[in-house]
Amino acid sequence: MTEQHTVIFQPSGRRGQVPHGIGLRAAARSLGVDIESICAENSTCGKCKVLIQEGTFERYGITSSQEHLSPPNVEETAYLADHKQALTTRGWQPSQVRLACQAKVWGDLLVEVPEESRRDKQIVRKAATERQIEIKPSIRKYLVELNPPTIANPKADWERLASGIATSIQLVRYGEPNLPRPGDLTIDYACLRTLSQTLRDSNWRVTVSVWQDKEVVRIEPGLMDTLYGAAVDIGTTTIALYLCNLENGAILAAESEMNPQIVYGEDVMSRIQYSIVHKEGLRTLHKAIIRALNQLLMRAARQAGISARDVQELVVAGNTTMHHLFLNLPPQHLGHAPFTSTVYRSLDVKARELGLAINESANVHVLPTIGAFIGADTTGVLLAEEPHTQDENWLIMDVGTNAEIVLGNRRRLICASTPTGPALEGAHIEHGMRAAPGAIERVVIGEKTLEPAYRVIGEEQWNAGQPKGICGSAILDAVAEMYRVGILDARGKFRSDLLENPRIRRRSNAMEYVIAFAAETSIGADIVVTQKDVRQIQLAKGALYVAARTLLKQFGLESPDKILLAGAFGMYIDKYNALSIGMIPACPPENIFAVGNSAGDGARIALLNVDKRREAQEVAARVTRYELPNDPDFQAQFIESMNFPERTKVRRHSNE
Amino acid sequence: MTEQHTVIFQPSGRRGQVPHGIGLRAAARSLGVDIESICAENSTCGKCKVLIQEGTFERYGITSSQEHLSPPNVEETAYLADHKQALTTRGWQPSQVRLACQAKVWGDLLVEVPEESRRDKQIVRKAATERQIEIKPSIRKYLVELNPPTIANPKADWERLASGIATSIQLVRYGEPNLPRPGDLTIDYACLRTLSQTLRDSNWRVTVSVWQDKEVVRIEPGLMDTLYGAAVDIGTTTIALYLCNLENGAILAAESEMNPQIVYGEDVMSRIQYSIVHKEGLRTLHKAIIRALNQLLMRAARQAGISARDVQELVVAGNTTMHHLFLNLPPQHLGHAPFTSTVYRSLDVKARELGLAINESANVHVLPTIGAFIGADTTGVLLAEEPHTQDENWLIMDVGTNAEIVLGNRRRLICASTPTGPALEGAHIEHGMRAAPGAIERVVIGEKTLEPAYRVIGEEQWNAGQPKGICGSAILDAVAEMYRVGILDARGKFRSDLLENPRIRRRSNAMEYVIAFAAETSIGADIVVTQKDVRQIQLAKGALYVAARTLLKQFGLESPDKILLAGAFGMYIDKYNALSIGMIPACPPENIFAVGNSAGDGARIALLNVDKRREAQEVAARVTRYELPNDPDFQAQFIESMNFPERTKVRRHSNE
Repeated sequence: MTEQHTVIFQPSGRRGQVPHGIGLRAAARSLGVDIESICAENSTCGKCKVLIQEGTFERYGITSSQEHLSPPNVEETAYLADHKQALTTRGWQPSQVRLACQAKVWGDLLVEVPEESRRDKQIVRKAATERQIEIKPSIRKYLVELNPPTIANPKADWERLASGIATSIQLVRYGEPNLPRPGDLTIDYACLRTLSQTLRDSNWRVTVSVWQDKEVVRIEPGLMDTLYGAAVDIGTTTIALYLCNLENGAILAAESEMNPQIVYGEDVMSRIQYSIVHKEGLRTLHKAIIRALNQLLMRAARQAGISARDVQELVVAGNTTMHHLFLNLPPQHLGHAPFTSTVYRSLDVKARELGLAINESANVHVLPTIGAFIGADTTGVLLAEEPHTQDENWLIMDVGTNAEIVLGNRRRLICASTPTGPALEGAHIEHGMRAAPGAIERVVIGEKTLEPAYRVIGEEQWNAGQPKGICGSAILDAVAEMYRVGILDARGKFRSDLLENPRIRRRSNAMEYVIAFAAETSIGADIVVTQKDVRQIQLAKGALYVAARTLLKQFGLESPDKILLAGAFGMYIDKYNALSIGMIPACPPENIFAVGNSAGDGARIALLNVDKRREAQEVAARVTRYELPNDPDFQAQFIESMNFPERTKVRRHSNE
Repeated sequence: MTEQHTVIFQPSGRRGQVPHGIGLRAAARSLGVDIESICAENSTCGKCKVLIQEGTFERYGITSSQEHLSPPNVEETAYLADHKQALTTRGWQPSQVRLACQAKVWGDLLVEVPEESRRDKQIVRKAATERQIEIKPSIRKYLVELNPPTIANPKADWERLASGIATSIQLVRYGEPNLPRPGDLTIDYACLRTLSQTLRDSNWRVTVSVWQDKEVVRIEPGLMDTLYGAAVDIGTTTIALYLCNLENGAILAAESEMNPQIVYGEDVMSRIQYSIVHKEGLRTLHKAIIRALNQLLMRAARQAGISARDVQELVVAGNTTMHHLFLNLPPQHLGHAPFTSTVYRSLDVKARELGLAINESANVHVLPTIGAFIGADTTGVLLAEEPHTQDENWLIMDVGTNAEIVLGNRRRLICASTPTGPALEGAHIEHGMRAAPGAIERVVIGEKTLEPAYRVIGEEQWNAGQPKGICGSAILDAVAEMYRVGILDARGKFRSDLLENPRIRRRSNAMEYVIAFAAETSIGADIVVTQKDVRQIQLAKGALYVAARTLLKQFGLESPDKILLAGAFGMYIDKYNALSIGMIPACPPENIFAVGNSAGDGARIALLNVDKRREAQEVAARVTRYELPNDPDFQAQFIESMNFPERTKVRRHSNE
């Protein structure tokens, strides 16, 4: 029997006996440690670098030494000499470093496998919202080196490539290796058209992208181990796009843009209407969104220093109307009872069918929808927040022009949607404006003086800057503060006995409160909150509240264990004020969280991890839609919900 | 226990015991007899008509009577009254007829199930070339009746349809019923775009076409049990298209047209060259073929009284260059060593990707190719002739501008290709012309007098009509006869000692033979066969002969058991003359068959029977390509093959 040596790999701690003379990489593999190599063990890629620990390690009972490996051969010596500087920079002793593909085991060894050399590395990135996403893209890339055809073997290009892939080097991988069998592979038609030329231009050495282990969607000349994808959330008002490195999850560019469809209608209903009354309405809306996406893709690609054609997959979230318009599906039946969508399930559509400027053979994955008003954006939120993995009852409110609300836990999920109107975004408010420089974003009112303090976007100090208007978060603040200090009563009416205060006045038969006098502003007019503005906020908050309450009632709950506020709006509103005017159900403030663009995060999660798409499909199919207008108590409860709740002291954390 | 009755179904002879009161259709099913019904047993479709035999049948030991069935209910009575005339016309006694979906078994019965009521009917058609094709199209049609969405059940259209299909009535079926599970079904994107409108326009009653039990490719309003497809053979010179009823295999229209690419080059090499030297060459050639196919499709559809959009599948055969140009794949590497094609395997490409005017969601199935010069046309020939099922050795020669030759049996198949030049089609021949009115198509020469007799296309009598030229078959005849009567020697040279005969003369230093003097012709000039014409035929026949001989040598054979001549040319040549000049290897003439457009027939077979596509794939992959130019003896053999073989008396059947 061959002499055996003890080899231990760090940091995994795997150890075992291996026969004398075995290659170090093979030894590692036999102990379940997979070390990188993409040069077919030719000492050219250097991906299999390991560090040899020298000394006697009593804990392990071995003595490890460079002498316990075969000396470097010519190729390895050359590689290590060429890269000495880079190794030193990394803090390694060049004398410690060996290439596992060349070194042979001649004695006991303690080997450290650096992160970058580990094939089974679990690359985890923190997303913008601190999410941990396991990387498992839908595409694996293979480096394929082929023998060119000869008279004796003129095999067709596709059959040559398909056999080549089966024995090729997998560049971007995850989970178990899964080399597709040649007969099971297909190739996208547009990709097939480029095949012959690319093979010859690249001297029969190409990088092949295989989608879902079955379809070749790209063939690039030479070695090309980068892999890019994009996730997009198409909102009624805003489109947000993330360009990601699919190998490590890094966000290379985040771009957003107004939805250009806004000129055809501010909310989903008016867009649906537009598609009905105009002959080419659907086409116009569809083209507008595609054009905007292409612009975002180009911008993001430029920022990342790549071409938009390098984007190999796009994952799309969006409300059901945006989903239909993106897919060029007629949306009209979303707009009238019984509110029916064309399709729930997720779809994969070729980029070229949609006219998207990414790789024409790429698949565009559209997340599943749940109902006519609970769209693929909510599916994205579910994927990002995972209420379906919780024992607790989570209430998730995604607030935009329309609000989608989900309540549930691992056993049961229900959802409802309600229009909230544009007031929460600053529209249809006397001095409302979008959150932009010059907008008042915070308002506090003195309890005794009824004097306001405000903060303007772009200013560090309170009451500094020349405001132009008020954005959504500040309107909410103002209303909550006006109620707290007694300017408004519980039904939202101005108290008429305060007219002696210069801030409170009657104009054209309606009351209003002055936040900033003309002299302080940049518009040369007083910035006020009117009785009508207060009513707008009451309508919006009432709709949200009754929806949340109705879902809680289904669960027999008074309040949820946790409230997650999704969407940009959730990031900016003051949760204490939201509680005090009764916009969200009672819940300890420390259990209320703003989670940002969850829908976009969900799309990004599905982009980075193909398993999550199945999860999305399953969860979306499990959610029960609760149709609010069918609830017999709805109307009465809605009217009641417009009132403000009894004033309570909500404990405000000092650091907020 | 319930009382049991004996029921016997004819013509299958299935018999068994069934419980009292069971429905007759259910009884049939329990005995393995499947009776039609597409109205969900509502007595409205009448597809389940059966004839009740009355009397005592000693052979079966039963007495059968109308009394042994429950009396007709209101619906059945109404149906039978409405259709009395039609039943009588069919030669049936209206009193004998019952609807199996309504009648209940009350006693012993002898039931005749007419062909049209049998669900398991094997519809077999004789094709143009007397082929029996089992019908098994790739598409099943389902009649789906859905409940419209309601507020309580607003399920999305696709999910509603997918569940509906799983419980629907299968209109066009074959083999085992195979209702796809909703989750396994997909829908073509273009088809999805029409879904919502079609469902509503048709009042939620639609006919759905499902391709390969997995993909919805069409949704038609109401009941639509017709199913059409087309098969096409794209030849270098001619395109032939067959429009078929996929339910019974009937050819509804057969159209053919010159390949419009001919203006860009007469043979495949010049087309390849055109695609290389012209910037938009490939695009031009591709567009030309698609435009021609669309014209053929329109013409065929008009003839069949349908729309081209009703064509639900297209199956394509053609030589490898035509295959590449049809698919818009660059053909240049087909044209130089090592002669490599882009893809062998069969492909399914969406009609809209190719710009074809059929159902835009339809799949276009392109038969597999075998090599750069052995194309999908040869695969079609293999499918039609099935040498791979034979114990005998069959030699199949598909002769056109290029000839593909296959030799083999169930164990082994080899093939080769050889250019034959255009001489066999009448081109590059002094007075050559295509087979068209005015062309001499047959020539016989008197052994003593050396006087010719000829027959002109469109004339019943010999030596009648005013010829304009000679077509391929007559040139072959003329050369064979000139050799037989001694005008030519075995090397194809004119005998100079015959110059006293007025038919034989020297002009511009070369010999020629006059078939028709100017006075007889419509061109005002003598129609002659020149020494150069003879050389052209020698080159063509030599190429064919050496190719066939080389393949036979691989099998160690002197001659095949059977020769099949495929292609239009094979239909017109005189096989005795082909044998006597050594164009085909020695073989008893009774074992030589002209099989017509086998390639087109193969495409039609694959269109009508989806299983044959797998067979095509398997057979194509099994064929070994024999590269003639690699054979060391090729050149010497080719030169030798140009000579005529020793004169032998070939027995000519009296009726030929």
